[in-house]
Amino acid sequence: MVLDFIRKKLDEYSVDAYVLLNHEASGQPDTAYVAGFTGSESVVIVTKTKQYILVDGRYVTRSKQESPGFEMMPANRGKVYSDMGTYFPEMGISSILIDPNITHYNSILLFKEGMKDLVIKTQSSLLHEIRSIKSEEEVVKLQESGKIACAAFNQLVKEIQPGMTERAVAGRLEFLMKEMGADKYSFDTIVASGTMGAFPHYTPSSKELAAGELVTIDWGCYLNGFASDMTRTIAIGEISDKLRDIYETVKGAQQAGLDAANSSMTGIGLDKVCRDYITERSYGEYFVHGTGHGLGMDVHELPYVNVNNKDLLPVNSAVSIEPGIYIEGVGGVRIEDCVIIKENGCLNLNDHVTKELITI
Amino acid sequence: MVLDFIRKKLDEYSVDAYVLLNHEASGQPDTAYVAGFTGSESVVIVTKTKQYILVDGRYVTRSKQESPGFEMMPANRGKVYSDMGTYFPEMGISSILIDPNITHYNSILLFKEGMKDLVIKTQSSLLHEIRSIKSEEEVVKLQESGKIACAAFNQLVKEIQPGMTERAVAGRLEFLMKEMGADKYSFDTIVASGTMGAFPHYTPSSKELAAGELVTIDWGCYLNGFASDMTRTIAIGEISDKLRDIYETVKGAQQAGLDAANSSMTGIGLDKVCRDYITERSYGEYFVHGTGHGLGMDVHELPYVNVNNKDLLPVNSAVSIEPGIYIEGVGGVRIEDCVIIKENGCLNLNDHVTKELITI
Repeated sequence: MVLDFIRKKLDEYSVDAYVLLNHEASGQPDTAYVAGFTGSESVVIVTKTKQYILVDGRYVTRSKQESPGFEMMPANRGKVYSDMGTYFPEMGISSILIDPNITHYNSILLFKEGMKDLVIKTQSSLLHEIRSIKSEEEVVKLQESGKIACAAFNQLVKEIQPGMTERAVAGRLEFLMKEMGADKYSFDTIVASGTMGAFPHYTPSSKELAAGELVTIDWGCYLNGFASDMTRTIAIGEISDKLRDIYETVKGAQQAGLDAANSSMTGIGLDKVCRDYITERSYGEYFVHGTGHGLGMDVHELPYVNVNNKDLLPVNSAVSIEPGIYIEGVGGVRIEDCVIIKENGCLNLNDHVTKELITI
Repeated sequence: MVLDFIRKKLDEYSVDAYVLLNHEASGQPDTAYVAGFTGSESVVIVTKTKQYILVDGRYVTRSKQESPGFEMMPANRGKVYSDMGTYFPEMGISSILIDPNITHYNSILLFKEGMKDLVIKTQSSLLHEIRSIKSEEEVVKLQESGKIACAAFNQLVKEIQPGMTERAVAGRLEFLMKEMGADKYSFDTIVASGTMGAFPHYTPSSKELAAGELVTIDWGCYLNGFASDMTRTIAIGEISDKLRDIYETVKGAQQAGLDAANSSMTGIGLDKVCRDYITERSYGEYFVHGTGHGLGMDVHELPYVNVNNKDLLPVNSAVSIEPGIYIEGVGGVRIEDCVIIKENGCLNLNDHVTKELITI
């Protein structure tokens, strides 16, 4: 299906080939999406009739296993891109389409060095739209990834103690995900306790969890190439009425978002549901980010649930619903589930963890 | 010092400014090296007399704290690069120098859109050479990072049991590093047991550690922006004479490398010391990678210790010494320390873990 999509693009742009670079350690998932290849440094070339994958010696065996439908072309290590200028004429390619957001300028210079009259056309984020609609198989992978995230957290809350450092909590949760089968973490786990909870993208420190604090934990893992991403906020002992009010407000907003999510909503519309709920309870100014983002082979991808996305959320797209309130000097709360958008509602990928306030 | 280096480059290339892009989630450390700023999306601009850092709202506070010597310029989120074309003329900049290996082609297109006659000159890996020579302060940071890696491993070996999965071992080691103060992991920890040890870049699986196997563990962490990276191979119970011979060969080769390392050696020369040792014991064909790589704010950086690096290893550069033997169907051994190169020897950053064979 993705090859058909790409070949339509070749017609649309009147070019001979789509060229997909995967720079060393790039982390871009397009190559795995198109060709199944999970290594990094490589070039995928899709012409009107054929598809190739170019890798160096490290990846010869792996690319043959993972990309059986692609003709494997061996390249010299460190010369993958400079070799291309020579390969293009041999392959009858004089014009290419690339995604300039994942292509280093240096590769373009190297292409041009090898083939001065190469025509290069660009479309940013070329595959993001097709990637945003999940197949049944991809939905299952997202569910499996979400289940590990849930199970690891449910084990973690049995073990958390006041006095543990934020870093140790983050490390323990990451360990549990890996022990339960995760391939890696979606991102560096966030554990933000007390007033640090006011920073949405806080890095865990050696600060210890203390009584009377809320602790926001944002975590996820990769399994079979698909990410999970969720957030819960828990309490250490008794918390103030103010903190409880903030918690209940975010919880209500998040539930309102889950209840409203379906394919007749735009990104703006779903964002507004959560935002209005919080604003009506006079915390509007403290909800400082969008309600959500797409999720799949990237942790952040299309479609976005924020004030800029006027489009309807497509059926079978995956999005996070994660309202939050952040008050400097006081603390913060965020609650996040990811869901698959359906015609009449949504499928929650993270509903194995309660949203009632957990108190340690 | 780095600003002086950059300004010399401005003269050398006859351009008005050096422009250093940090794409969202890029992981490139040049920005932190030049400006101290540890966030991602940003633009650093160094002219002959001034230096600026351009960030969006998320990073305004952080960049002021981390980059006091830089004039902070606020940018619109998602428009950092397209805004540049407008800023350049206002700043009197009509020609720039960039590193095309860390710059997306799309940013170049956006620059040109904003300012058609902008002159763009390029030098790949512009800052890598200066970054390869460590200051005293940087050496201390590398030592601290190395100490955490050592301490975490020494705790791990007390806990490893036959029957633990590779993934659980990896997760536990990562947890221990974080608990001991690491900011994050240098890379996904490798735990390769039994015949899987024959794959240098194996991903840990749910395979359980079993008696008679060697287990290669390759790990490291970041602390204060500087990476550690080390490898040990341990035994589960009694191992065959063949595996013991492989182990002792790699251990001998690694020690020979440590003994020989100093600033009168080239990358080729130091590689040859380890390679000859292994070849003389008839395992040469199974040592399938270079002896080492530089280490610093990146886990792999200049200088390289391999058959391609004809240059002398500079005083105060940091390199890994990590020979290995990998035999398909049998298993593998790798032993790795990182060192600071000195005139008369080297300073081992990872000497708090034994290289005698640890048997669980």
